[in-house]
Amino acid sequence: MLTINRLDQADARLLIEGAAARATEIGVPMCIAITDESGNLLAFERMDGGKVTSITVAQDKSFTASAARKATHEYNAACVPGNLVFGIHTALGGRLCVVGGGLPVMVDGEVVGGIGLSSGTPAQDMDCAQAGIDHFMRSRA
Amino acid sequence: MLTINRLDQADARLLIEGAAARATEIGVPMCIAITDESGNLLAFERMDGGKVTSITVAQDKSFTASAARKATHEYNAACVPGNLVFGIHTALGGRLCVVGGGLPVMVDGEVVGGIGLSSGTPAQDMDCAQAGIDHFMRSRA
Amino acid sequence: MLTINRLDQADARLLIEGAAARATEIGVPMCIAITDESGNLLAFERMDGGKVTSITVAQDKSFTASAARKATHEYNAACVPGNLVFGIHTALGGRLCVVGGGLPVMVDGEVVGGIGLSSGTPAQDMDCAQAGIDHFMRSRA
Amino acid sequence: MLTINRLDQADARLLIEGAAARATEIGVPMCIAITDESGNLLAFERMDGGKVTSITVAQDKSFTASAARKATHEYNAACVPGNLVFGIHTALGGRLCVVGGGLPVMVDGEVVGGIGLSSGTPAQDMDCAQAGIDHFMRSRA
Repeated sequence: MLTINRLDQADARLLIEGAAARATEIGVPMCIAITDESGNLLAFERMDGGKVTSITVAQDKSFTASAARKATHEYNAACVPGNLVFGIHTALGGRLCVVGGGLPVMVDGEVVGGIGLSSGTPAQDMDCAQAGIDHFMRSRA
Repeated sequence: MLTINRLDQADARLLIEGAAARATEIGVPMCIAITDESGNLLAFERMDGGKVTSITVAQDKSFTASAARKATHEYNAACVPGNLVFGIHTALGGRLCVVGGGLPVMVDGEVVGGIGLSSGTPAQDMDCAQAGIDHFMRSRA
Repeated sequence: MLTINRLDQADARLLIEGAAARATEIGVPMCIAITDESGNLLAFERMDGGKVTSITVAQDKSFTASAARKATHEYNAACVPGNLVFGIHTALGGRLCVVGGGLPVMVDGEVVGGIGLSSGTPAQDMDCAQAGIDHFMRSRA
Repeated sequence: MLTINRLDQADARLLIEGAAARATEIGVPMCIAITDESGNLLAFERMDGGKVTSITVAQDKSFTASAARKATHEYNAACVPGNLVFGIHTALGGRLCVVGGGLPVMVDGEVVGGIGLSSGTPAQDMDCAQAGIDHFMRSRA
């Protein structure tokens, strides 16, 4: 039997809180998705003004980051024609997302979930995702 | 040009709050989804212990209730073999959900969104969905 | 943070072993799928002679039993026209399976995974799934 | 009438055994999928620690290698913009996988099945897939 550590709902709210605060700060309303360590959705918020397409993209970024235990921008860097990773962006019906903005959430060196943001540029999405993680880590300390 | 009335994120939080309070009361952790009047996801929460299959089912119930402007249990009643509505449960790849637990959210006689609950029995899901709407309406008064 | 108990690969092999032994006994080669507590595939075996359609059906049964924490034949009993659960069989693109043959695997009152069998009659599938669980429980004792 | 040669379940176990042994050696827990000559799943194992996204990717690699009778890294090399093969990675809803790690299994110059690995780098996945084939061929000799 395995024993697994996983974000709970309170953790998910902290992650969203931190990401939304940063999104408000930069003036870009976002879709924010939090998944558990298996990639399943824990919480989602579309800030007023967040894009409809981003509902799915934010979830797919968070799914990828948590279930593959890798930031989506890292997949992006490797997913170039001629690289053996190329093509991974169409896996799982395109649900494996290589657009920047999905980060694994790590506690004690272990992936316990993920966060995915969408509606801004990938750089803005990544910035807000990191702000969510920073807020979560500070609140745990 | 049309002018549309739509739940905002604060409304969505109220709906979730009311539904989650009732779910806690009856001891059944739920997946709770809120959609706007077009059926697009606004907010989602999987309470600690909510089922993985309910992540999608809750969203599909809310989608159906808001986008078709009809409670899912009303579709259920009509979706019996021999009735001309029968078969609607496989529409949209099965996303049109006829399982009880999805309710349209109405303000001034107009559908402004939907709420969908899943993880309990349909009766429990419907009860908690209604509790979400009640809490939302009271908070608006 | 939540702490989750989950089948490991050795557990999955025991479950398959027990189910396959019973399938051999009754002379019906089966597809056998084992999922973790989140519904994700851990192990799969198509016995020589198992059906191609059963590859997916066995996985969907195991997914349903573990992720919804309910035996698929229990869903089957409730999924009749006029019952508020009717329609659940088309959820998740039909991946939520209500055909008998999927059982949750429980340890200390908690769902830690699932087992799904397909290729025989539902009664045969259920019998072999239970045999898998029995063998697993005996081996743990 | 055609006569087809196809891996049996004992062959599939040998392929997994060899691949898993190599994965353990390099310290990367893998998802390992074996398909028959028609691309249909015969056996699957997610080693403890294998990634959730790799469940599908490993199967798609094995499916591609066996059903298209070509290693996925060979598709990868050809699947570059401007080459007439480009675009094949989105075929079959993305199920045709061009990420390295899928190899056809050949006996007497004929494809009898496939093996697909995922969770490491493509080079690691390819290495372990080859180790599975080597072990299978040695066991047959």
